[in-house]
Amino acid sequence: MEQQQKQRTGPADLPWKNKVPRTEANMDQRTYRLYVNKTQSLVCVVGTELRVNLNKCAPIRSKFFSVKCTPAVRCQVVPATVAGGSLFSPQPLTRNSVLFISMDAASELPNESKLSVKFYGSKKEALGNAVLHLTAVEISLDVDADRDGVVEKNNPNKASWKWGPNGHGAIVLVNCDSESYYKKRVDTEKEEISKVSDLKDMSRMILRTKGPAQLPEGYKLSLHITQTDAESVRVFKNRNRGKPQASSTMKNMLLKLFMQDYPLVLNKEQLAAEVPYPGGSSELEFFVEGLRFPDKDFEGLVTISLSLLEPSAQDFPETPIFTDKVVFRVAPWIMTPNILKPVEVFVCSTSDNYEFLKGMRNLVQSSGYKLNICHEYMNRGDRWMQDEIEFGYIDSPHQRFPVVLDSPRDQKLKEFPYEVLLGPDFGYVTRYAQKEEVSSLDSFGNLEVSPPVTVNGKNYPLGRIIIGVAFPTTAHGRNMTKVIQDFLWAQKVQEPIALYSDWLLVGHVDEFMTFVPAPDRKGFRLLLASPDAAYKVFTNLQNNGHGKAKLFQGKEEEISVDEILSNEELQAENVYVQNCIDWNRDVLKKELGLDEDDIIDLPILFKVDTEEENRAVAYYPDMVNMIVLGTKLGIPKPFGPQVNSSCALEAEMRSLLEPLGLNCTFIDDFSSYHKLLGEVHCGSNVLREPFAFKWWNLEL
Amino acid sequence: MEQQQKQRTGPADLPWKNKVPRTEANMDQRTYRLYVNKTQSLVCVVGTELRVNLNKCAPIRSKFFSVKCTPAVRCQVVPATVAGGSLFSPQPLTRNSVLFISMDAASELPNESKLSVKFYGSKKEALGNAVLHLTAVEISLDVDADRDGVVEKNNPNKASWKWGPNGHGAIVLVNCDSESYYKKRVDTEKEEISKVSDLKDMSRMILRTKGPAQLPEGYKLSLHITQTDAESVRVFKNRNRGKPQASSTMKNMLLKLFMQDYPLVLNKEQLAAEVPYPGGSSELEFFVEGLRFPDKDFEGLVTISLSLLEPSAQDFPETPIFTDKVVFRVAPWIMTPNILKPVEVFVCSTSDNYEFLKGMRNLVQSSGYKLNICHEYMNRGDRWMQDEIEFGYIDSPHQRFPVVLDSPRDQKLKEFPYEVLLGPDFGYVTRYAQKEEVSSLDSFGNLEVSPPVTVNGKNYPLGRIIIGVAFPTTAHGRNMTKVIQDFLWAQKVQEPIALYSDWLLVGHVDEFMTFVPAPDRKGFRLLLASPDAAYKVFTNLQNNGHGKAKLFQGKEEEISVDEILSNEELQAENVYVQNCIDWNRDVLKKELGLDEDDIIDLPILFKVDTEEENRAVAYYPDMVNMIVLGTKLGIPKPFGPQVNSSCALEAEMRSLLEPLGLNCTFIDDFSSYHKLLGEVHCGSNVLREPFAFKWWNLEL
Repeated sequence: MEQQQKQRTGPADLPWKNKVPRTEANMDQRTYRLYVNKTQSLVCVVGTELRVNLNKCAPIRSKFFSVKCTPAVRCQVVPATVAGGSLFSPQPLTRNSVLFISMDAASELPNESKLSVKFYGSKKEALGNAVLHLTAVEISLDVDADRDGVVEKNNPNKASWKWGPNGHGAIVLVNCDSESYYKKRVDTEKEEISKVSDLKDMSRMILRTKGPAQLPEGYKLSLHITQTDAESVRVFKNRNRGKPQASSTMKNMLLKLFMQDYPLVLNKEQLAAEVPYPGGSSELEFFVEGLRFPDKDFEGLVTISLSLLEPSAQDFPETPIFTDKVVFRVAPWIMTPNILKPVEVFVCSTSDNYEFLKGMRNLVQSSGYKLNICHEYMNRGDRWMQDEIEFGYIDSPHQRFPVVLDSPRDQKLKEFPYEVLLGPDFGYVTRYAQKEEVSSLDSFGNLEVSPPVTVNGKNYPLGRIIIGVAFPTTAHGRNMTKVIQDFLWAQKVQEPIALYSDWLLVGHVDEFMTFVPAPDRKGFRLLLASPDAAYKVFTNLQNNGHGKAKLFQGKEEEISVDEILSNEELQAENVYVQNCIDWNRDVLKKELGLDEDDIIDLPILFKVDTEEENRAVAYYPDMVNMIVLGTKLGIPKPFGPQVNSSCALEAEMRSLLEPLGLNCTFIDDFSSYHKLLGEVHCGSNVLREPFAFKWWNLEL
Repeated sequence: MEQQQKQRTGPADLPWKNKVPRTEANMDQRTYRLYVNKTQSLVCVVGTELRVNLNKCAPIRSKFFSVKCTPAVRCQVVPATVAGGSLFSPQPLTRNSVLFISMDAASELPNESKLSVKFYGSKKEALGNAVLHLTAVEISLDVDADRDGVVEKNNPNKASWKWGPNGHGAIVLVNCDSESYYKKRVDTEKEEISKVSDLKDMSRMILRTKGPAQLPEGYKLSLHITQTDAESVRVFKNRNRGKPQASSTMKNMLLKLFMQDYPLVLNKEQLAAEVPYPGGSSELEFFVEGLRFPDKDFEGLVTISLSLLEPSAQDFPETPIFTDKVVFRVAPWIMTPNILKPVEVFVCSTSDNYEFLKGMRNLVQSSGYKLNICHEYMNRGDRWMQDEIEFGYIDSPHQRFPVVLDSPRDQKLKEFPYEVLLGPDFGYVTRYAQKEEVSSLDSFGNLEVSPPVTVNGKNYPLGRIIIGVAFPTTAHGRNMTKVIQDFLWAQKVQEPIALYSDWLLVGHVDEFMTFVPAPDRKGFRLLLASPDAAYKVFTNLQNNGHGKAKLFQGKEEEISVDEILSNEELQAENVYVQNCIDWNRDVLKKELGLDEDDIIDLPILFKVDTEEENRAVAYYPDMVNMIVLGTKLGIPKPFGPQVNSSCALEAEMRSLLEPLGLNCTFIDDFSSYHKLLGEVHCGSNVLREPFAFKWWNLEL
């Protein structure tokens, strides 16, 4: 390899790029041509190198050459001169004589450094002289590639992205909140920055330059992005020049400034923009804004580049002679499992759910959380708060906020997420589907997330998303719409699991499963509805002489334990239901790495609606469809068999859950939810605190 | 972990899944429930295991249990029985007593194996008895996962895909040829298989089953695919049952059969299909057909699944109790660099290119290759054979054929690739763009590929694709259209490099670069157009007293060496051009890992067209725009300065190239190509042999 022949004599360190040892491999090398008897002016970026083939520049019949330069210029010739030989005296010119030129520090004045190469004939008579006027500049486009919230100087890894605690690479958020409630729009849909606070949702990017007050004539800086990447991010500029005080906090700095000081510089209509060279030692500040989440056609990475342009002759385009790149990953949307601390509970108020609201208010307020009631003018009778929205969040080293995913379900609650939730530091995202594609499986009672798990040594510290679909083996069957599934899979950090929920009339996974916190084992239990467990409770009651005990007391036509046990049709239906749930149990065990002892079977019966393609609904309030607030559970009141003035099903639930330190509150949702085919969980939603674990520390 | 308590006593090998050691981790486990005083019938797939929680099935007050089974059934109980204790005699029933059931070989008759579990009270009095009738079947969906052209049995890696010589995973081709010339369409656009030969372009997939003549009532097999994957592949079935002779060649087998024997079973309208269970030891044959190439929204992998469905009660959907999966990767489209052996040379015949055709015919025929002339009725005067198409190929262990990529350029040659090239074992692919998006940079003179290279230790054994674009730093400027760029990047195996070609009026990379084979170094040289090298030749001529020598003799107004050298405007333009080419030289050196000695500068001058935004065209025939046929080069005849009755530029070319064993033939393309801004390469195309290296052996 040619480069191995090279001899270097100068110092081996570069103060500017001090994290990169100076070797051939990481020096940007540029072919440069000298023209004899001309004076050329050139900007040299510190950290790069010019490569001049002397033989190609030499006048015909040249046999020797000499090189002179001012002190700031580093010159080296390959093949090396004879030991002790100085470049000042004529050296033999060979076919491969190459001069390498570099500069180690920024110049104070344009063209302050000089270099000349003189060529000689066979008798060392002078044949010509090429002169170079050099200006050195330092240029670095900087981001927070080490993820500590501060934009460091020239991180050597800034142009790539790597997952994990030893990884690197900057992060940008989709700016999907709305800085103001007035004339509300998602911030990415506004063409300008409306409030200083909006800058907090963007990622700072700094162009650091050092050099003379002005660049030599015609040199320019250009910030640029590809067409594809401009679909995912755009860039604003801080027009206020000068180096900000390193000690001033971002907040203070921002408050001093006006909006018009932040013009848009790059977006999909403007892929390249000249940026000023401020001169001296300067920092130009930019703000990068994410426009869309990772999805099927967008892996999440974007690159922004800064080039130094060299003028050509008049009317010819400038040439980029140096390019610095930075890479961002758009932060994924992250769901929050039941084990995370609640912040706020959302329910609907309707004309008929007073009892339910009272129960919820007691539970939530006694637990110390905030209860947020969506009133009828907004919900228009749609009480299924679980189904229209899913709460999640986005996170970066510099900013984090909750983001609601709005379901394509779009029933009467459809205005709620945009009109009520979207706001400052509360983001909004949705996906659109054709109306005929949307089914009940697109309601987000059918979208849940597990607590953190480890499966065959693979860690899921943010848990795994769980959705319900039809068996893939059936030609018919309902599914969650493809746009939502694609979105969920593309977030990557909570790899989804597809369960079978199409056997249910409503078709939501929250009708047969949930997770509760536990002090032992994996930190949680999976709760599964179990007709088998229910029959065991009823058979025990019968065997203990309580066969006449009645369900549904005070709610609807009562039925006794004996009657239930003697109903062979119901029993057959529940064998089928148990089979469906067992199928899901096996998938969950495998995909979440669970043991049997991680699962608790709850005594719940189903029945089948023969008019609705034999799909199943809960026979009495579906207790697994609960709300989980820390260790407090709000469970649909089952109205089970009354034994000694207490409900045998409630007693069984307490005996299963209280040993885990869980507190069971039974909430009457019978008329206002259960009879409409939903329960407590379907009728509520919980905004939770984010994970302490940072998604970029995942090892993917 | 619960599973670590388990004790196994049976043999540790499974003849059927003999490549998979039998351990907990790779046994599919299914939750199963026994019902006391009932007889259940069940199919058990060899290699899977049933998990029965005995306590959950036991009648109330059960304290003991015993298990009996016929010899083919493997039963194990956890926690293990007391040492020496037999399952035949009553064992204590605990909360965690679990019975594991599996079978090691296929049954000969339905329900031929039996298992019963008896439960006892505290005094060992019988309380109930659950009986299971078992049928064992072996099921394996098989593909050529080891890439040897043969569909092996149950490859343990068939459900995943890994690059490299130690990788695995099946391959499917996009069936983009056309089996017949009559009523020609790409095969993927036909709804049925029209010829037996079409099956060769598909990947065989075999469903191997072993078991009784019939499955117990209600059990079914279902082949299925996801909606997303069905956009990329479809599946045909061989209706002829029975096990084919292992020794019969595929060709013979196929010729015996009729077309209607291959119905379509899976496509995007039909995501799941029942397939027959033939009984005994059988193989069902399927053919998988690729429908689209990897692209921006398609990574290339598809999964096909086969499930065994268990009947539920009447009118309830069947449950998939076992699923086997296979993964295919759609083969990428691969380009062929100049160093590969030519097969056929394509040129156009026009009313004015007789001289050119004569030159090409001589060159091609003396080299022993086939010359294919596209006549005027088809080319309609469009002579730019290089620009409308790019030849490539697709490859798999079972089949390989050339595929033409049709440019969105779509000038008068646009019918040629589809009408002439598409045919049996000659595929066709294109990408569509809006007419206003298409520019001269979409012509495939602007799409080339390097020979194999190694760059900083990273191997590119299939070379790297090279395209030309505008500088990203300019807001204006022409580019290759996004649909083509996305397609090229998505193929992955020849990672593209973007050069700067927008400085040229025509804007194609083949105007300033090409590759020729070489016996030494990396096996090739990069040839670059070089105004500097041209000026060196002319200056030498002048210094040697040939300043009066004339260019363009007999072609157009002659001009002397002295006149060229004294034209300062031309010199300034060529300094600019040299600068543009040097920029590309630096990119190519870096991205292809080239040294200076891997590059040869060819003496070529350009001039700038001030009426066309100062873009450059060749001053005399652009010799780098050559055709490379093994070691024979067809070079545009430069009509350079005549010195001693020979052309100084031709002499210089010979002196540069002949030492590499290359043979230079200069072809007169002056009037018919050069004056129309193209040359030999622009006016020709070469179909080449594929790489010996198999793309799936790449380490990506």
